[in-house]
Amino acid sequence: MNKIVLAQIDTIAGDIKTNSEKIISCIRKAKENSADIVIFPELSLIGYPCGDIFMRHKSIIEKQIKALEKIAFETQGITALVGFAEPTNDSNKKPFYNSVAVIQNYKIINITRKRLLPNYGEFNDYRYFEPSKEVPKIFKINSQKYGILVCEDSFNDKSFFKNDSLYAIDPVKDLIKQRPDTLINCSCSPSRCNKEFIKNSLFSSIAKKYKVNYIYVNQAGYADNLSFDGTSRIYDKNGDLVLRAKTFDEDFVITSDLKGEINPLPNGMDKEIKIDDFELNYNNDLDRTYKSIIFAIREYFKKNGFDKAVLGLSGGLDSSVCAVLLSDALGKKNVWGISMPSKITSNESKNDAKLLAENLGINFFEIPLKDTLDAMKITLNSSFENVETEKYEKPTTMENLQARLRATILWSISNEYKRMLPIATSDKSEAYIGYATVNGDMSGGFAPIADVTKTKLFALADFLNENRAEKNVIPQSILQKPPGAELKINPETGKTVCAEEENMPYEFLDEIIWFVENRGFGFDDLINHKFFYESKNPISLEQKEEWINKFYWKSKCAVYKWHIMPPSVVVDMHSINSVEYRQPVISWVK
Amino acid sequence: MNKIVLAQIDTIAGDIKTNSEKIISCIRKAKENSADIVIFPELSLIGYPCGDIFMRHKSIIEKQIKALEKIAFETQGITALVGFAEPTNDSNKKPFYNSVAVIQNYKIINITRKRLLPNYGEFNDYRYFEPSKEVPKIFKINSQKYGILVCEDSFNDKSFFKNDSLYAIDPVKDLIKQRPDTLINCSCSPSRCNKEFIKNSLFSSIAKKYKVNYIYVNQAGYADNLSFDGTSRIYDKNGDLVLRAKTFDEDFVITSDLKGEINPLPNGMDKEIKIDDFELNYNNDLDRTYKSIIFAIREYFKKNGFDKAVLGLSGGLDSSVCAVLLSDALGKKNVWGISMPSKITSNESKNDAKLLAENLGINFFEIPLKDTLDAMKITLNSSFENVETEKYEKPTTMENLQARLRATILWSISNEYKRMLPIATSDKSEAYIGYATVNGDMSGGFAPIADVTKTKLFALADFLNENRAEKNVIPQSILQKPPGAELKINPETGKTVCAEEENMPYEFLDEIIWFVENRGFGFDDLINHKFFYESKNPISLEQKEEWINKFYWKSKCAVYKWHIMPPSVVVDMHSINSVEYRQPVISWVK
Repeated sequence: MNKIVLAQIDTIAGDIKTNSEKIISCIRKAKENSADIVIFPELSLIGYPCGDIFMRHKSIIEKQIKALEKIAFETQGITALVGFAEPTNDSNKKPFYNSVAVIQNYKIINITRKRLLPNYGEFNDYRYFEPSKEVPKIFKINSQKYGILVCEDSFNDKSFFKNDSLYAIDPVKDLIKQRPDTLINCSCSPSRCNKEFIKNSLFSSIAKKYKVNYIYVNQAGYADNLSFDGTSRIYDKNGDLVLRAKTFDEDFVITSDLKGEINPLPNGMDKEIKIDDFELNYNNDLDRTYKSIIFAIREYFKKNGFDKAVLGLSGGLDSSVCAVLLSDALGKKNVWGISMPSKITSNESKNDAKLLAENLGINFFEIPLKDTLDAMKITLNSSFENVETEKYEKPTTMENLQARLRATILWSISNEYKRMLPIATSDKSEAYIGYATVNGDMSGGFAPIADVTKTKLFALADFLNENRAEKNVIPQSILQKPPGAELKINPETGKTVCAEEENMPYEFLDEIIWFVENRGFGFDDLINHKFFYESKNPISLEQKEEWINKFYWKSKCAVYKWHIMPPSVVVDMHSINSVEYRQPVISWVK
Repeated sequence: MNKIVLAQIDTIAGDIKTNSEKIISCIRKAKENSADIVIFPELSLIGYPCGDIFMRHKSIIEKQIKALEKIAFETQGITALVGFAEPTNDSNKKPFYNSVAVIQNYKIINITRKRLLPNYGEFNDYRYFEPSKEVPKIFKINSQKYGILVCEDSFNDKSFFKNDSLYAIDPVKDLIKQRPDTLINCSCSPSRCNKEFIKNSLFSSIAKKYKVNYIYVNQAGYADNLSFDGTSRIYDKNGDLVLRAKTFDEDFVITSDLKGEINPLPNGMDKEIKIDDFELNYNNDLDRTYKSIIFAIREYFKKNGFDKAVLGLSGGLDSSVCAVLLSDALGKKNVWGISMPSKITSNESKNDAKLLAENLGINFFEIPLKDTLDAMKITLNSSFENVETEKYEKPTTMENLQARLRATILWSISNEYKRMLPIATSDKSEAYIGYATVNGDMSGGFAPIADVTKTKLFALADFLNENRAEKNVIPQSILQKPPGAELKINPETGKTVCAEEENMPYEFLDEIIWFVENRGFGFDDLINHKFFYESKNPISLEQKEEWINKFYWKSKCAVYKWHIMPPSVVVDMHSINSVEYRQPVISWVK
């Protein structure tokens, strides 16, 4: 048997120098360990996803080809599988193939070109790559026969996907005809809710059905709003999992018998998330969600040259969860939580913010908003005297002003101190309906929870309170009060207006979002749908219709905000993140 | 001969109700005029571009199919060519064909499915559509034979494009074999610099080569950052242009002899813009640029329910040109120009802003920044006492603060008054190198000049001064002073720091941008390139290298800002607008 290395590396889009140095250092380490084969993820040399950069900046491709020669120079006595963008040199074709080069003793002895090109959601392969029409050849190393699959090539098993198979051909079948001993899948597959369950079942079934070993090497890293979880692994000819690399971390795994340590997954990640019904039990996905976000924060900061974060602490759920996540990702000494109360802010909120910061041990202080707010109000009121045109009956000016001045303070702090990024604390439910202020709470250098709905966020907060070394850092009072921005007072009650009063119950809203994203529901479907919320809280048809209409109208107005959202990590099955979903500002959806 | 209508309509993505009502009203009007055929643009029923909305929101497709039946009901005695997304109903294919239905007497008598699917720049056809493998059939109406091309299908003439032809097949050739009398091209083709010249030459040469009439019907409208110019037309069998519809406006053109009025183009639009060399003479593209932006503003505002704009007037070039464009697009009564001087602002700038507003006749007043700025400074300084970590040697805090408070004022005004949008005044040169403030001058509901470089902007300002009814509205002093944000003082000179001091000469920067975008130049190419700027201003190699390095470093840091840019209209051949160019924030390009 050959000694094999699964080089589960992280790459940077277009950074040929960094990527090739990492590849070479892995090859050297593999040689030191007398390995026969070292396997890298899909497109490991050019980085994935690259967006359009290698289409516009030709020098990236030139550097890539030179780097491939340099890598070849390191392959004496070893075989390296390196993913790269291979020019087609045919103007009638797309400019590149998505290829894996098998390099041995200075020479490329085999090239496998990706045949199935995903072009949905976060994937845009067909924008750059030509789908290969040829069946790749298997190759032999020390009498063992190997066949290569490039990511999606392994995802069209007709008996597994049945009517959901997206392509006419199955590249696995075509490889199997050549009787390989082992299939090698070089991938860049981001972590999404439920995806591990599907991958595990699929790979295992392929290994078992065809009686082959199955090696999967996946990128570990964060790029362009996506967390790549790594979790490379090997299945034996019975379909049994016999080795698994780390999750949400780079890894370098050596095996001489195709077996090895089975690293643990985040809790629940191997479970199927039922996608037939919406439910408020997010348990199976909380640990993965947590680790995915932590990993994203850490990588995004590191790769962009930041190591500190500053965020506003309102004493509410969103900013509290963000603070915990940032503290765990960057270290508590590197997080500044700022309380910026206005006169509307309750004492309870002020105390909650402080208590949270103390529990976490992050840096904390208060900046009262009063003086700037007063000065700005006087300035604005005098300017409003000069504008003679139709006013809103209930303008949102003063609510938004508080949020905007707070963000101005956070950005100012980040402008003053080195390597410090301000944080946008908006959650997914709010983003959907635009319940966040432009240049206010939705503004920042990174948005950690922009793909976590409010109901899931409550579950995540409980999870954090129970599962971190320090228990209950998020005060119970934060978890028990109704969410709201504390930006305006209801004149009738004298209390701050809570979010559900202005919008609709979050349980209802989150269920709409779930069915729109996962089932493609439209207005009629939603009206006819029996909401989980309704089973507990009977509501009239008028009420239901009002909320559903509100959802459509508010999201229409929110699309502009989706377009200017800071980078954030995708964690759900589907999202409104521009990396996977594009809706023109001028559009109508219902 | 048949009486033909070119229905050059505007559509809204996903808004089946609005689009189908417009289509039906055109069919009725065509019937009233005893027309035989009425031709609509590509995908006219579902709207173009739709982004991902019809993939996620299935109800849009359901509504579209019902609307098609309704439209068919209107076709007694007339033939309508309607573009729609046709479900493939085959999970192994992409979900839709990009099709044109020929509907006559309640029935679809022919369907032409697009064969060449562009997937570069602003086009993403292959994300949604299956390329048709079949050669469409021509059809006969009153003994005249017609063949349909869907946009890109007409753009692969091998003798015209030579080595730049992107596809193996030429659908025009396949149609011609069936001997049609007339080719009909249903398109959604956005206006880009130089595109009219290419289209005109190509269509004319096809008509002439094959001795066929050539009818081109293009969408007129603004959607998702793109201005669709319309400019539908007919060429006769000699390749001569014999009819041309309006540019940047909807139109409804009837012809009984395939001839008609030849509407004028914007000046210079028919000229080839030389793309071998960069030059500072933008003359051939100024009128098109102007009309394209005006059209974009008008449509964006109207379709989003706005009719008024508010912008800061600094007395500088960017905001001045924006004010003229907004005034022309929305009417001077609907534009509010606000001067927001700080103590750094020169009297000259204050006067220039006022003079410009008076010349234009827009609403104008001054809001001094001093009080809020002072209050915020005190607040910030006291907060900075609480942060103990590494400071920047030269923090940008106070510069950015001015820009952010100005934007806060503009957003506040737009929150107070109905249907009023704040304007982001950043230009393309600044956007490239991030010389604009997040939540400051780059923030707004729309960015009119985000794809106009500074040197072109100077030319555009001259053009506006010479070509509008009211001459010289932009004061000469604005055109003569060196551009700069007036946000900080150079302690050595006591004067405000101008942009070229901090960055590099705009002529040099714009030439870099041009060669990167149009020639794919990398660092080495730029170093070896003899700059137009150099021929007039000899510079050392060190200086050149410093500027080029600065360009790469500053644009790397600016990518984040590109991701949160407000919607803006693309006018150049290439841009950094996310509608056509995607670069991950974590990436390296040089």
